[in-house]
Amino acid sequence: MTKIKDIGEQGLLERLHRFCPPEMIGDDAAVLVTEPEQSLVITTDVLVDGVHFSNVTTSPEDAGWRAAAANLSDLAAMGASPLGIAVGLGLPGDLSVNWVEKLYQGMTECLQKYNTPIVGGDVVRSPVTTLAITAFGQVHPSRIIRRSAAVIGDAIVVTGVHGASHAGLELLLHPQRGQNLKDEEKTALIIAHQRPQPRLDVLPILEKILPSPCLMPNTSLREAAPTPSLQDATRTCTERSRSTLSTSAICPMPIAGMDSSDGLADAVIQICRASGVGAVLELRQICLPMAFNHWLTPEQALQYALYGGEDFELVLCLPQKSASALVKHLGEGAAIVGRITPGSTILLHDEQKKFPDQVLTLSQGFQHFKS
Amino acid sequence: MTKIKDIGEQGLLERLHRFCPPEMIGDDAAVLVTEPEQSLVITTDVLVDGVHFSNVTTSPEDAGWRAAAANLSDLAAMGASPLGIAVGLGLPGDLSVNWVEKLYQGMTECLQKYNTPIVGGDVVRSPVTTLAITAFGQVHPSRIIRRSAAVIGDAIVVTGVHGASHAGLELLLHPQRGQNLKDEEKTALIIAHQRPQPRLDVLPILEKILPSPCLMPNTSLREAAPTPSLQDATRTCTERSRSTLSTSAICPMPIAGMDSSDGLADAVIQICRASGVGAVLELRQICLPMAFNHWLTPEQALQYALYGGEDFELVLCLPQKSASALVKHLGEGAAIVGRITPGSTILLHDEQKKFPDQVLTLSQGFQHFKS
Repeated sequence: MTKIKDIGEQGLLERLHRFCPPEMIGDDAAVLVTEPEQSLVITTDVLVDGVHFSNVTTSPEDAGWRAAAANLSDLAAMGASPLGIAVGLGLPGDLSVNWVEKLYQGMTECLQKYNTPIVGGDVVRSPVTTLAITAFGQVHPSRIIRRSAAVIGDAIVVTGVHGASHAGLELLLHPQRGQNLKDEEKTALIIAHQRPQPRLDVLPILEKILPSPCLMPNTSLREAAPTPSLQDATRTCTERSRSTLSTSAICPMPIAGMDSSDGLADAVIQICRASGVGAVLELRQICLPMAFNHWLTPEQALQYALYGGEDFELVLCLPQKSASALVKHLGEGAAIVGRITPGSTILLHDEQKKFPDQVLTLSQGFQHFKS
Repeated sequence: MTKIKDIGEQGLLERLHRFCPPEMIGDDAAVLVTEPEQSLVITTDVLVDGVHFSNVTTSPEDAGWRAAAANLSDLAAMGASPLGIAVGLGLPGDLSVNWVEKLYQGMTECLQKYNTPIVGGDVVRSPVTTLAITAFGQVHPSRIIRRSAAVIGDAIVVTGVHGASHAGLELLLHPQRGQNLKDEEKTALIIAHQRPQPRLDVLPILEKILPSPCLMPNTSLREAAPTPSLQDATRTCTERSRSTLSTSAICPMPIAGMDSSDGLADAVIQICRASGVGAVLELRQICLPMAFNHWLTPEQALQYALYGGEDFELVLCLPQKSASALVKHLGEGAAIVGRITPGSTILLHDEQKKFPDQVLTLSQGFQHFKS
């Protein structure tokens, strides 16, 4: 087994070059061409061996895939299309070169699905394996999706099933669990954990169903009186564009959102906090993996869905009509799971009354999950 | 002393928000507005405690400054103006919050000099303090400085003194050395190590002295016949634009270069390798700190200058006339230190014949420095 200390950081870098486009290599920095009139979107994740991944549950290929997917998901959550990622690696000398190559293999497998290159990075010696990814994307300023843009009356849409990733992790950590599950059900849950799909596919659908608010203010903005001019339309966007400093002169999309990487409950809470609103979540509308029915209690299933995290779906708040159209386009797993309300309370409501209404908070969520 | 584990990563992030522009906070990613027709330039550095910095020689403020400066220097080396940096931190729970705040203080002190914001990042738990910085800049495609663009006959310019940073590090590691130095000389060398200045100030000077090659091909490109049209000018740039895939349709600057972060010798060798050329360096033209005269032997002084590294000057290859104009504008420390030659040999030549001619190679350079 060739170790990194056998070939050195420089030798490793040379081996990793095959994962990067050749024109990105050989200078102090990489150069990317961006399209005009697009804003640049930047997101960074740091992953540490033993904290964020481990050889017990995650092969290097999967660690690479998951790291790339998490960053692309952050871009999708902002409405941005990916341009590239930069990879910073801290690696112990005793680590095998093969492990690093497999990590890159997993990253590029995920990235290639979305035509996204690795545009460079850095490899250094470190006592602990550390992976720092910075992803860049581009989005037209009017198309930025922000957490702070939810307004009262919005429908809350989830783009897919929640709880599967956490269930997959449980099965990897405790293979004796899930005895009632069929093999293909187990595999599907484990793959949901190992190979999450960033929902970049949602962006062109949003583009299709949401007309440009500045050009058609009265069809997409509920608050807007039917005004023909751009200036008036812009003014009616004030509520949505608060705290979106860089787009102050541009009427943004009638949509708020983020991804559910830290759990569905966290996403709804963060959006409500940032927007100064409350929400009601309809418990029965949240799509769970079918396999949960013959494995978990309803309480456990709900906790996995709300607090499990790493499903990397999008949680979007938008007008009811657009929400219905979006769900129809997205298909299976996508659903309107609630609505934005006045106040600041986030209420979980069960129309079948099997669960009592409960107020969701971040700390309560955390306790739920840990108990 | 408040430790990170006392307030958690979330609590720490909230304290660090004051170092970022408010509009960059609160979403899955940060949004930056770029100017039209500019290419995006990206560079990443990972720094690990005990490998790249240590509390013996580096305060957290200086570690922050140096990390920011190194990244800005990579942008300057590409001809790019900085847009922002993203900071990924891996931190042990036992580390003091104050240490991290001082790190950010140092980073922002350096960045503010160049109007560059911290546009976000990530903070995670790690057994070893790790700092991953990704810097973004912008440059017009015709203004990109690449290593591969040196041509035979170019003058090699250094933008300042070499060897000072390494001398400062020596004084920090071994305070008993440099007995013959005055206090102010010691201080100047130590500051050169602790607070290096990225040479972004060189870019507007280059813009001034180098006319746009596409508009004035015959004044700036030696190979160009006097041709009035843009098409012709572009064609004459073939030699410079080889291996610059993203600028294939654009006539680049008649200049090659990189920074001297890994030493002056390394920079010249890397440029020559990437350009497929050789070089002669004139030993007496390399500017050393005055203090070296009453501290180091001529051999030691030369080794510090050639192999010490971290001076973060630019090493630029450009036409003789432009080189003279550049040196005149830059003032003290800047000099023409050699010229680009046919072949692949990089020769160090002493016109006073006190040193024999020697061929520089990367491995030889490394041995020199370690011996």
